[in-house]
Amino acid sequence: MKKPLILVSNDDGISSKGIRTLVEVMKELGEVIVVAPDGPQSGMGHAITIGNTLRLEETDIFGDVTAYECSGTPADCVKIAKHFVLRDRRPDLVVSGINHGSNTSISVLYSGTMSAAIEAAIEGMPAIGFSLCDYSSDADFNHTREHIKKIAETVLKKGLAKGVALNVNFPAKQKEKIKGIKICRQARAKWQEEFDQRYDPRGRRYFWLAGNFVNFDKGEDNDEWSIANNYVSVVPCQFDLTAHHAISLLNDEWEI
Amino acid sequence: MKKPLILVSNDDGISSKGIRTLVEVMKELGEVIVVAPDGPQSGMGHAITIGNTLRLEETDIFGDVTAYECSGTPADCVKIAKHFVLRDRRPDLVVSGINHGSNTSISVLYSGTMSAAIEAAIEGMPAIGFSLCDYSSDADFNHTREHIKKIAETVLKKGLAKGVALNVNFPAKQKEKIKGIKICRQARAKWQEEFDQRYDPRGRRYFWLAGNFVNFDKGEDNDEWSIANNYVSVVPCQFDLTAHHAISLLNDEWEI
Repeated sequence: MKKPLILVSNDDGISSKGIRTLVEVMKELGEVIVVAPDGPQSGMGHAITIGNTLRLEETDIFGDVTAYECSGTPADCVKIAKHFVLRDRRPDLVVSGINHGSNTSISVLYSGTMSAAIEAAIEGMPAIGFSLCDYSSDADFNHTREHIKKIAETVLKKGLAKGVALNVNFPAKQKEKIKGIKICRQARAKWQEEFDQRYDPRGRRYFWLAGNFVNFDKGEDNDEWSIANNYVSVVPCQFDLTAHHAISLLNDEWEI
Repeated sequence: MKKPLILVSNDDGISSKGIRTLVEVMKELGEVIVVAPDGPQSGMGHAITIGNTLRLEETDIFGDVTAYECSGTPADCVKIAKHFVLRDRRPDLVVSGINHGSNTSISVLYSGTMSAAIEAAIEGMPAIGFSLCDYSSDADFNHTREHIKKIAETVLKKGLAKGVALNVNFPAKQKEKIKGIKICRQARAKWQEEFDQRYDPRGRRYFWLAGNFVNFDKGEDNDEWSIANNYVSVVPCQFDLTAHHAISLLNDEWEI
């Protein structure tokens, strides 16, 4: 049997611990090619680079795994991987992560990790974004390995519905073993921002974006509940943003 | 009656012609406050600034309209407007644009214009992104004025469903008058990328992201069809990316 081709990207940058772990697990499943940002791209959402140029350099950072670092966003990485690096070769799976930090709930919109996966889904490729609910740069990813392998194997075997990418989040390492995997919806929550106002050495004002995550969702079928209860959360995501339920409402209420 | 408070942002930057037109129309409807990027932020998707600082400076660019330029993304502008500039004052409406260029179909994901509107929807504020299907910096926006006024008035009067922001696109100015307004879904389409490979004066390779828009959608109820047929397209958008139809599929097919 031919080994599957697996494209790996992320948003924390090619030298982060999370992508190293992901490459190691994917090497057990197929031929791996990495195209990842050359530096941190967290919070980049689905940004692409259109007003500026892109750099792409091959690197031996993963030893015998073919790898490129790109100056662009995670979405750029998937685009340049598909249209320039791989050309006629089509990945059987695209994985992104493992992100250092949660991408549950509304964070999926701001997530560079998930934008790589969603970009792959737009291109019709099965895609998964993996995130660990631990922001530290030396986070322990070991407890995620068996689950990542199982989820990736399942997607390689069964595929995914057209236009769907998975948003997979893992609880941070704790004493208790992970209880299992839950298929979830995105929880209703938001970031309650605060702006930390400071003054630079020249006396000019600047700000840091800060804030707290606020969960409004009392349901038990969402990703926040799953993580809080030590389950792996798997949310199928799509790129059709249409609020289909609102179309008939507008056609009714508006006089157009 | 108290004048409504209208927050205006965009992604082409505070000095663009599109936002100037939008501010002029909004001044007819209420008290306007502008918080917009200090330079171009096109293609920024739902990016936010978390690894870097933000600047915010007041400007008299719009004469008697209170206005701030911000060094961040469109989503940052809405966040800093709500949490720092306006604080206890809550906008009755948030509008973004008018974008120089189309934000129909899949472009909604990459659009900074729409990320400002969606950020406002996350905060529970009625929000609309306006875009003109003409990329030129001196595009003619005059034919959009009456429609923008009507749509904004309707939203001020009737509100919007919770969590919904409107993605409004206008055909470029042409001889024939716009036929009307259509409530639409997002068309199924994508950008077929090409990477334009060049070499800098030092002989190092770089790329420009280029590409063509490819529409796969044969329906007539979508935004691409409406624009092609000289209608204004109005797509209600949401920030729940869950592919709800895929949850039961995964619960069926996966052995977890």
